[in-house]
Amino acid sequence: MENLAYYNGRIAPIEEMMVPMNDRVCYFGDGVYEATMVNNHKIFALDDHIERFYNSAGLVQIHLPFTKQELADTLNELVQKVDAPEQMLYWQATRGTAPRNHVFPQNVPANLWVTIKPMKVKDQSKRLNLTHIEDTRFLHCNIKTLNLMINCMAANRAEEMGCDESIFHRGDVVTECAHSNVSILKDGVFITHPTDHYILPGITRKHIIQICKDHDIPVDETPFTMDQLMNADEVLVSSSTQLCRAAGTVDGVPVGGKAPELVKLIQDAYMEKFLGETR
Amino acid sequence: MENLAYYNGRIAPIEEMMVPMNDRVCYFGDGVYEATMVNNHKIFALDDHIERFYNSAGLVQIHLPFTKQELADTLNELVQKVDAPEQMLYWQATRGTAPRNHVFPQNVPANLWVTIKPMKVKDQSKRLNLTHIEDTRFLHCNIKTLNLMINCMAANRAEEMGCDESIFHRGDVVTECAHSNVSILKDGVFITHPTDHYILPGITRKHIIQICKDHDIPVDETPFTMDQLMNADEVLVSSSTQLCRAAGTVDGVPVGGKAPELVKLIQDAYMEKFLGETR
Repeated sequence: MENLAYYNGRIAPIEEMMVPMNDRVCYFGDGVYEATMVNNHKIFALDDHIERFYNSAGLVQIHLPFTKQELADTLNELVQKVDAPEQMLYWQATRGTAPRNHVFPQNVPANLWVTIKPMKVKDQSKRLNLTHIEDTRFLHCNIKTLNLMINCMAANRAEEMGCDESIFHRGDVVTECAHSNVSILKDGVFITHPTDHYILPGITRKHIIQICKDHDIPVDETPFTMDQLMNADEVLVSSSTQLCRAAGTVDGVPVGGKAPELVKLIQDAYMEKFLGETR
Repeated sequence: MENLAYYNGRIAPIEEMMVPMNDRVCYFGDGVYEATMVNNHKIFALDDHIERFYNSAGLVQIHLPFTKQELADTLNELVQKVDAPEQMLYWQATRGTAPRNHVFPQNVPANLWVTIKPMKVKDQSKRLNLTHIEDTRFLHCNIKTLNLMINCMAANRAEEMGCDESIFHRGDVVTECAHSNVSILKDGVFITHPTDHYILPGITRKHIIQICKDHDIPVDETPFTMDQLMNADEVLVSSSTQLCRAAGTVDGVPVGGKAPELVKLIQDAYMEKFLGETR
């Protein structure tokens, strides 16, 4: 298939897949999700994503009616069905299908949705142009929910300004981006917002932290400010689909670019891990 | 029909209606909604709801591909199709159907969803039992969006505790409830959170304010605290489906009950307005 949608066992091209109106996602955005890249029909960092998926579900009391191994088996099987070997794999679980009611339905299983489409890994050497916006989201940004309107608004604003991503900040404190984490390098130290309720605990971020530690780059999980970001040696934007990208500008003002060898070291190590796991 | 679902012109029973997976509501909860009661196949406060609907849509840049009059005509036509004359009418607009991407799709019309089901007006004399929870929602609670997971969690927690509704407060300041507004009566004054970004500008709340002014009950739109609520003469919970209900307890502790004649005056005036408009 060129692309694939899966809904509770049914399979169809994404554009043709229909779902019940009473799926609770339709009224409440009531679900959690994951996304990762696939290379050679092999899913990158699957265990990490499944672990986070179950954690997100647990925090919002969605009870997944399958084991981690069953989910892994389903996903591994589905990525074989799409022709292109390089894919983006996305899945979500919603709190079942029931008449609209804020209160959770009883004895209704969660629904499993999957989409797979061709996608190549982005050119890591190209620098991103960023903008920024006040972070007005809820205080549950650690949970990967489908309540993403504010993220969409921020991403769309970035697009309208000719930028690639939007930095969220609460007052002066940088949290993350509209759909990625953001960290800085300053004087050889990797500085990144701690994994509290203001940011998603990014899996790429986690791997980058490990790469830093493996290469004796000190890691400081302390909130940093927009000023610190503007004056950083490098600004790194990371996500499961972008991997690890350096920024070139914020609202047209040049940022980073002062430690390109460190950026390349991290990117190369990341790509080595990515290609190694999906060989 | 016993109940009715409408999706961009298609009509079916709610349980049978299917929608495209790529409707942006499915990935982002990307839409806005309204709900109101119907009596004698006549929609209560339709103009108010349509006005708020367009305002919500405008604030999140959803461009509705129909006029207010066309929407009113569609809704008025649909409520005739459901057998029961007393109904709950619900509708939402989502930001169109397109491949998943945080950035808004270009030249894609919004989707219109409607559901109608039998529902009788609640017994206004029965007092509600409430609980309370810290308000951790986003700072856009004035917009009636489909990003409602936290509201669902709060409503479900209330249900688990044997309560009818959950009061949200930011620190000690009461904002609203999980799916209604909350106000208090103290020494003959109606006190209610102002319509800022912390609460939905409730239409029932607006009508109650007008009723108070019509009856020389002073209205004070100033934030009040949980302490003030616990010591109020009456606690009033209002929404389009609950209309105007008084509370009897918060976490089992008796509240209100000290100005029942004022509650009855407001409820009777509200019911008179409701029945008058839907005769």
